[in-house]
Amino acid sequence: MQQEFASRLLESAVTELSRLPGIGRKTALRLALHILRSDESVGVALGEAVINMRKGVTYCRECHNISETELCPVCADGRRDRRTVCVVETVKDVMSFENTGQYDGLYHVLGGVIAPMDGIGPEQIEIESLVRRVASGGVDEVILALGATMEGETTNFYIYRRLAPYTDVKITQLARGVSVGNEIEYTDEITLGRSLVNRTLFSDSIKR
Amino acid sequence: MQQEFASRLLESAVTELSRLPGIGRKTALRLALHILRSDESVGVALGEAVINMRKGVTYCRECHNISETELCPVCADGRRDRRTVCVVETVKDVMSFENTGQYDGLYHVLGGVIAPMDGIGPEQIEIESLVRRVASGGVDEVILALGATMEGETTNFYIYRRLAPYTDVKITQLARGVSVGNEIEYTDEITLGRSLVNRTLFSDSIKR
Repeated sequence: MQQEFASRLLESAVTELSRLPGIGRKTALRLALHILRSDESVGVALGEAVINMRKGVTYCRECHNISETELCPVCADGRRDRRTVCVVETVKDVMSFENTGQYDGLYHVLGGVIAPMDGIGPEQIEIESLVRRVASGGVDEVILALGATMEGETTNFYIYRRLAPYTDVKITQLARGVSVGNEIEYTDEITLGRSLVNRTLFSDSIKR
Repeated sequence: MQQEFASRLLESAVTELSRLPGIGRKTALRLALHILRSDESVGVALGEAVINMRKGVTYCRECHNISETELCPVCADGRRDRRTVCVVETVKDVMSFENTGQYDGLYHVLGGVIAPMDGIGPEQIEIESLVRRVASGGVDEVILALGATMEGETTNFYIYRRLAPYTDVKITQLARGVSVGNEIEYTDEITLGRSLVNRTLFSDSIKR
């Protein structure tokens, strides 16, 4: 879409906005015109928030979660169970697990999964640092919490093999089963099979 | 959606991004995490472009198009036909007409259309300044180029009445007809009727 802009400042804002994922030039123009119509303070606050975030946010030295300090709030929290490490793909997954309110251990953010088709091997993601973390001791359990996809399973298996030498560390993975709220009719057969094999006591579920 | 953020800077960027139209908190988080993953210069460029645009862009004194100077590039261009004024709803419409390459007159941006249901009357949009512009002379033709909606037609008619005293000024409106590329089958009957009444010489169309 060729566009005649009356303002180079507008054009440059549209260009930068359209670099964001899922935002084309048409949407970027709509956003920019909205910012122009809003109060000046709103546009300035947006710009400053983006700059401050990009400059101020870094990654946790220990678990690679995003953080404003060397250690993220989870790793720095003395009340968390330091013997359990949950391995996740992204920082978004950390937020999801935190929102469940069911987990009080630490995390390890891989920053991706092994995907040979996309050229992502074990060395492109934070697997070495996980192995070092386990090797240095103090970890009793590693929970593999990657997506139930081909790449997720591959990565799970790779990590499982790499951690095999540490025989006193328990390696677990998330339960597979019927999603809460889902109809049996719409659940795929592999999931259904697993949910049958790994069935749990009904009395356990009503106790909660 | 309740969210546990590991960083207040991230949270604040998500909040500001989610003020944009059509961007919810989930999308805002996805955009923010993308900015964090990108090079620092990309995030800073985005923030600065937004701030510079919001601070530097103003509105043309004459036609209310966006501009970085007192007069917008169109009004300031000595080669444009100053005797023709095209009345449009938004600055986006100016861009659309400029992109046709078929218009060399000036514009007048109303900044909206009369919409009593939304509480927008003639005094909320730039109609008085249009009347003043015509009254001060030098205008031969006013083209009403608002959308073919109820509100657009109402506004057209209101402007037509307000400009009636200036009998030497020709008031025209955009041709209504079948959109280029559209099937007759999918064209509504009112448009079809108008396109029949206002039919043009075929020989005129093949000359272009």
